[in-house]
Amino acid sequence: MAYELCYWPGIQGRGEFVRLALEDAGARYTDVAREKGGMAKMMAMMKGEGEKRPPFAPPFLRSGKLTIAQIANILFYLGPRLGLAPKDENARLWLNALQLTVTDFVKEVHDTHHPIATGLYYEDQKAEAKQYARHFLTDRVPKYLGYFDGIIEKSGGPYVLGRRVSYTDLSLFQLVEGLRYAFPKAAKKFEKKVPRVIEVHDRVAERDRLKTYVASERRIPFNEDGIFRRYPELDA
Amino acid sequence: MAYELCYWPGIQGRGEFVRLALEDAGARYTDVAREKGGMAKMMAMMKGEGEKRPPFAPPFLRSGKLTIAQIANILFYLGPRLGLAPKDENARLWLNALQLTVTDFVKEVHDTHHPIATGLYYEDQKAEAKQYARHFLTDRVPKYLGYFDGIIEKSGGPYVLGRRVSYTDLSLFQLVEGLRYAFPKAAKKFEKKVPRVIEVHDRVAERDRLKTYVASERRIPFNEDGIFRRYPELDA
Repeated sequence: MAYELCYWPGIQGRGEFVRLALEDAGARYTDVAREKGGMAKMMAMMKGEGEKRPPFAPPFLRSGKLTIAQIANILFYLGPRLGLAPKDENARLWLNALQLTVTDFVKEVHDTHHPIATGLYYEDQKAEAKQYARHFLTDRVPKYLGYFDGIIEKSGGPYVLGRRVSYTDLSLFQLVEGLRYAFPKAAKKFEKKVPRVIEVHDRVAERDRLKTYVASERRIPFNEDGIFRRYPELDA
Repeated sequence: MAYELCYWPGIQGRGEFVRLALEDAGARYTDVAREKGGMAKMMAMMKGEGEKRPPFAPPFLRSGKLTIAQIANILFYLGPRLGLAPKDENARLWLNALQLTVTDFVKEVHDTHHPIATGLYYEDQKAEAKQYARHFLTDRVPKYLGYFDGIIEKSGGPYVLGRRVSYTDLSLFQLVEGLRYAFPKAAKKFEKKVPRVIEVHDRVAERDRLKTYVASERRIPFNEDGIFRRYPELDA
């Protein structure tokens, strides 16, 4: 049975955290909105047409009759099925807490270019974005990445859970890739302080299927409609 | 065995979503940081002292040897144990997606008074907060509450899952209480458009143990250090 991933077709965005897990596991899936007529299908589902449990927003995953929304929730479900999470309940809850911390961080990344309102253009909140980004790079990035670095140290490494890779490690890969894209100057500085996070990134980048995916056309390039955007004025 | 809830002692904040579930279920728990020496204990856990899996931030819950962070994750764990969630996996995933949507909304509520940086005072981002709050009240509140109203309609009501109350219903109660406190003028308007959400609020408010709790000294009053703050200039 193939999974169906529903997400905006032109960006990596939040959907990418799910794509990376599916790709790394070699799972069969369709990226619904990137197929012919898929966008209309996705929008209908969000409007609740024929759907008893409509999602609030993409990404969401169809697995048989199930529709699952929210990145961390999707990965909680997929994790053990894709071999990217332990089956033990306690370990799954711990991994879920880590993934939810990724979610929180991703929202703050988004807000570097949209601090006032998602409904406004970046150009209409540029001054506020500069302020936001300055605090983000000074306080928040070190706090979040430092936390993950400490977790990897405590686990014994090289991954967040220790010797076995998990979906959250794939997410850390994506965070590092995204921060390098959006804030290349700042990234050079803070990367030095989180060597364990960078090691996770580097190890994940060398995984066969993931490497093939990232080099393929299926990987949408970073761009200025996504979560990670390169606006040089925000890169202190 | 009693649960231990770790959260900032002077505010309802994010911890309140967990408190409401524990109180409604009549569970035995200690509110760690409100006890003598509790604050030091909580801070030590966050620093990772003696803790292999330290949480990123409060709230977190101790249950035996388990430490669980992130509201939605805590409630996912507690739900079936407290009789506030079904045991069926698919229903639990659906409830978790709804609760994560509450989490997203709560973050936006927080940002109405802290749109630029958590590390700055409100007074230092007041102009931006006014802008943020305007968009929040115009676009976001109707979007989120309208979504939940539609979900209750689809479930057949009166609760988000249908006939049985869940922890997410308790969270909706808290959202309505908080919005009424922070934005009394705006609340009068938008409440009319989400009658099913208000019905959930009203039903939850009448539940015996919850009613007793809300009237007790254990319920910390809303104040201007929490998530929901009454700043009249933000209430359009």
